[in-house]
Amino acid sequence: MRTTRAPDPGHVRVRLDLAYDGAGFAGFARQPEQRTVQGEVEAALTAVLGQPAVTTAAGRTDRGVHALAQVVHLDLDPTVPRAGPLLAGRDLAALRDRLARLLDPSITLWQATRVGSGFDARFSAVARGYRYRLIDDLAACDPRRRGEQWVVGEPLALTAMRSAARHLLGEHDFAALCRAAPGRSTVRRLDEVALHRPGPGRLDVRLRGPAFCHQQVRSILGCLVEVGRGRRDPDWLREVLAGRDRSRAARVAPPHGLTLERVSYGRRWPGAPPRWVAT
Amino acid sequence: MRTTRAPDPGHVRVRLDLAYDGAGFAGFARQPEQRTVQGEVEAALTAVLGQPAVTTAAGRTDRGVHALAQVVHLDLDPTVPRAGPLLAGRDLAALRDRLARLLDPSITLWQATRVGSGFDARFSAVARGYRYRLIDDLAACDPRRRGEQWVVGEPLALTAMRSAARHLLGEHDFAALCRAAPGRSTVRRLDEVALHRPGPGRLDVRLRGPAFCHQQVRSILGCLVEVGRGRRDPDWLREVLAGRDRSRAARVAPPHGLTLERVSYGRRWPGAPPRWVAT
Repeated sequence: MRTTRAPDPGHVRVRLDLAYDGAGFAGFARQPEQRTVQGEVEAALTAVLGQPAVTTAAGRTDRGVHALAQVVHLDLDPTVPRAGPLLAGRDLAALRDRLARLLDPSITLWQATRVGSGFDARFSAVARGYRYRLIDDLAACDPRRRGEQWVVGEPLALTAMRSAARHLLGEHDFAALCRAAPGRSTVRRLDEVALHRPGPGRLDVRLRGPAFCHQQVRSILGCLVEVGRGRRDPDWLREVLAGRDRSRAARVAPPHGLTLERVSYGRRWPGAPPRWVAT
Repeated sequence: MRTTRAPDPGHVRVRLDLAYDGAGFAGFARQPEQRTVQGEVEAALTAVLGQPAVTTAAGRTDRGVHALAQVVHLDLDPTVPRAGPLLAGRDLAALRDRLARLLDPSITLWQATRVGSGFDARFSAVARGYRYRLIDDLAACDPRRRGEQWVVGEPLALTAMRSAARHLLGEHDFAALCRAAPGRSTVRRLDEVALHRPGPGRLDVRLRGPAFCHQQVRSILGCLVEVGRGRRDPDWLREVLAGRDRSRAARVAPPHGLTLERVSYGRRWPGAPPRWVAT
């Protein structure tokens, strides 16, 4: 499974770092007849470079989920007319600028780099980091940013949520907390679930692990909010996890509160999220 | 002109502190057949308190302009059925919560207070503060927040813009830099025009003064960006201001980059913007 296809001879491998507002897309992954982030990016690449463009991504975010630091790679033929100058050098700023002007403002292409053929946006990633933003007091909602936070509207018990979150740390079968795909393991390792209040009435949850299953973060958040609302004890989440039965878990949290904020590739391919991530 | 109408006998004066995303509104001020912030807030007040509600605001923001700290006042009759309990005490949290649940999520009512009859949201205000957010590098745009910043897309010269801004400080006739209303003075005092970069590719302009004319901030911004782009010298702005001729100024900047962030009422009516303003 975890093998990286080498580029065709004569092709160069390019890494793109993207941010997007998930609101107007049917998710990241290309789908026929749907507006998707991958579809838009590939169309822009084809328009600028005059060749087919097929990207592989670090994380296929769901419909409505945002990203500040999505990473994709693809292989391109520099011998196609006009493509050569745009693919020369390591920092492909000219390519980035050409693409950025074509892309809808809901997608920011903040970096384009030429990388070695060993780099794979999906399989070289060693960690993925998400942030989920909650508002638990209507009066604390900056209405300009309501598209990036879930307004729960009743006070959440932070200490109880932290106790519940601790049950999830480490390696577990997350079958109860994700949408299973036939034949695929639901065993994952979770290295961090950090809850903090950046201000009154606001609660941020940061999650980090090598990889996540489909809807895992939103399912975890749905359960943590049940605990925060006092409808469940913190230990209920341990039982749900152990039961491996999705019907016992809470409903998934809405997608718009979630942002893919970081994908790490270790020392071999250093890189940082854009400096505006924290703002 | 600058007189405050006292409430009718038996009425109580209420102050509301509001935030809103200006995107979906035809501005703040009530207009027939249009969706406005004032119209929505007054309709919610009437629904909750069973009586007509006519508000007076600190700043009538234009179509598309946001606010984090708009202030309005109105006079209400506590003898109307159901209104009494909601208008008792100083902190009207119950009223705030009832209204908040009725209002569209693009409006946050973050505070409701009973105030003395000497308070007037418009005429008691001693200072108003605005922030305009600019992005001068496409790669620095957080796409989730593109609705609150003007993406200029080419590098702006901060030092030149600061030199130009200095010409505006103090009291001037701003006829060249606002949309005049017949019979109304365009003399205003500007106490602060502060430019800084909160991160690479981003530029914030904060403006503060006792009061502003119609479109004054957006007109100033339009001119500052012309200077930042190198199309005009900093001293050009001094000439524009002195000429009092609006046709010599630059086009107004788009409204969505602008937010009313603060209205101050001095020591007699202390108050602070919501703590989430800075985030």
